Amino acid sequence: MELKEIYEPIQKDLAVVEERLKATSVKDAPWLNELLAHALKGGGKRLRPALLLLSARFYDYDLERLMPMAKAVEMMHLATLVHDDTIDNSFTRWGRPTVNKIWGMEKAVLLGDFLFAKSGELTASTENLRVIKLLPQTLMIITNGELAQSASSFQLGQSREQYIFRISSKTAALFVMATESGAVLSKAPEKSIQILHDYGYYLGHAFQIIDDILDFTGTEEEMGKPVASDLWQGTVTLPTLMLMEKYPNDNPVKKLFQGGDKQANIKLAIDMVRNSTIIPECFGVAADYCKKACSGLKDLPKNQAGEVMINLADFIVSRRN
Amino acid sequence: MELKEIYEPIQKDLAVVEERLKATSVKDAPWLNELLAHALKGGGKRLRPALLLLSARFYDYDLERLMPMAKAVEMMHLATLVHDDTIDNSFTRWGRPTVNKIWGMEKAVLLGDFLFAKSGELTASTENLRVIKLLPQTLMIITNGELAQSASSFQLGQSREQYIFRISSKTAALFVMATESGAVLSKAPEKSIQILHDYGYYLGHAFQIIDDILDFTGTEEEMGKPVASDLWQGTVTLPTLMLMEKYPNDNPVKKLFQGGDKQANIKLAIDMVRNSTIIPECFGVAADYCKKACSGLKDLPKNQAGEVMINLADFIVSRRN
Repeated sequence: MELKEIYEPIQKDLAVVEERLKATSVKDAPWLNELLAHALKGGGKRLRPALLLLSARFYDYDLERLMPMAKAVEMMHLATLVHDDTIDNSFTRWGRPTVNKIWGMEKAVLLGDFLFAKSGELTASTENLRVIKLLPQTLMIITNGELAQSASSFQLGQSREQYIFRISSKTAALFVMATESGAVLSKAPEKSIQILHDYGYYLGHAFQIIDDILDFTGTEEEMGKPVASDLWQGTVTLPTLMLMEKYPNDNPVKKLFQGGDKQANIKLAIDMVRNSTIIPECFGVAADYCKKACSGLKDLPKNQAGEVMINLADFIVSRRN
Repeated sequence: MELKEIYEPIQKDLAVVEERLKATSVKDAPWLNELLAHALKGGGKRLRPALLLLSARFYDYDLERLMPMAKAVEMMHLATLVHDDTIDNSFTRWGRPTVNKIWGMEKAVLLGDFLFAKSGELTASTENLRVIKLLPQTLMIITNGELAQSASSFQLGQSREQYIFRISSKTAALFVMATESGAVLSKAPEKSIQILHDYGYYLGHAFQIIDDILDFTGTEEEMGKPVASDLWQGTVTLPTLMLMEKYPNDNPVKKLFQGGDKQANIKLAIDMVRNSTIIPECFGVAADYCKKACSGLKDLPKNQAGEVMINLADFIVSRRN
């Protein structure tokens, strides 16, 4: 199934979110609006607003009440991407030049800060304290995870637990912010909030694992970045972990992290990951997370949104970009 | 009067804020705590928490109720400094190496993001919606001001209005966040909130004008950065504006911005600013803002804090570092 087809039941509302997102601007601030326009019109799957709208569909669904948070989760996501691209010195995203590429590091850092603030303002406008508290908590989790990743780069001896902690922080937390705030703002009962929280949490893990697989299986052309870009940056992901588990004594990642030839060892690691059972095993782990994500949905009120969420989980685990 | 002497009536409470600030840490995150410790133990005048405590002294003063915001205003300030130092590639602050100098740009950007989030969490914990809304609004104003400054660097034809807009955004907004939230959290009546808001607003202008004066009159040793560092970065401040007003047809700033020799023109600009009436005139402008800041205080309940706030304004306009 295509994403467009999956989104169909929420497509109209999602289009309103998209339109409002793109209309974001600040009075008398052309220097800022130019950057905002670039960041907000970038594309992407708008997965987080979609998750929020879907999670709100089971109880008291009111698009206008949800709107600020639907925009806020996407802006927060975009803010983290703008800062990530700046930090990683990445020049392309979604086939377009990044903010740091066009306007430089200075403006990219400030634009990210502005987007964090704007998402905070939107969240505050809900006047819902639970949702309000979720935003800074999520951002703390994300940045802590990013710092953990940075601290562990080129480090041997990493565990799966450390990897799961990192993807839980850097990806699942924001999925949770989307699903939990959708649930809370639609006045879902506590048990349903927990189910939707868990959906976001485990789906976020699956999503990131697939991202980490694609980093090995995709082509430079498809991804707009080098194959195994994580390894180039010294970041250990699930395929790399499995490679090291399979060949604990001698493997190209170990050699790479011990200062061996970068190009040759990364090329070898890519070949070994691709030509082994590692990729299907990783897909298996992601599929397990998806299953876990969806396991509670049956206890929610029967609803088309529940089916969409299952389709979305299937899409995420089978996507190829 | 020394700052220590001025702070005396709030010294005990300010020391508690300081202690709690320094105790900030995250469980099982040594990679983050190392950065936090460096950023939070850096020194600085703790002016913003002081303003918050003082502004709360006129009505229902409760240190524990104020504590989260007292920490939040300082953390937000520190977050902006961490990002500023990163953007400006500054290596020293308060006589110590900056976060970006020690740990690099990547960690500095993320630490700033974490501090923004932490200040958001602290603010949310007050459960006071007015104060909660103030934080993202302030951060939006600050980043917009920083972007305006960046967009105007090395640009001729700037007006005083543009300068005032920038200092209002980048400095006065955070002073206002401190004084207004102190007033709100101490349950001050609306009229008093406005008086304390205005105190922060105008004092912030005065503070930044003095900063901009010191950038010309200080020595490299005192400041830990080159004299006229603003000009080196192409930033127009009040002394520079006055210089261009005095010599509209021919002046070293014009030459500098038109691509002339950097070192020679900046040296000449410093000499011309120092050896003219510009510095006393700038002090005059700052003093006017201080007067404006204090003009409403007489309408607040009679209180030692009012005197402290007047002393603080005097200190700010006469400080030499």
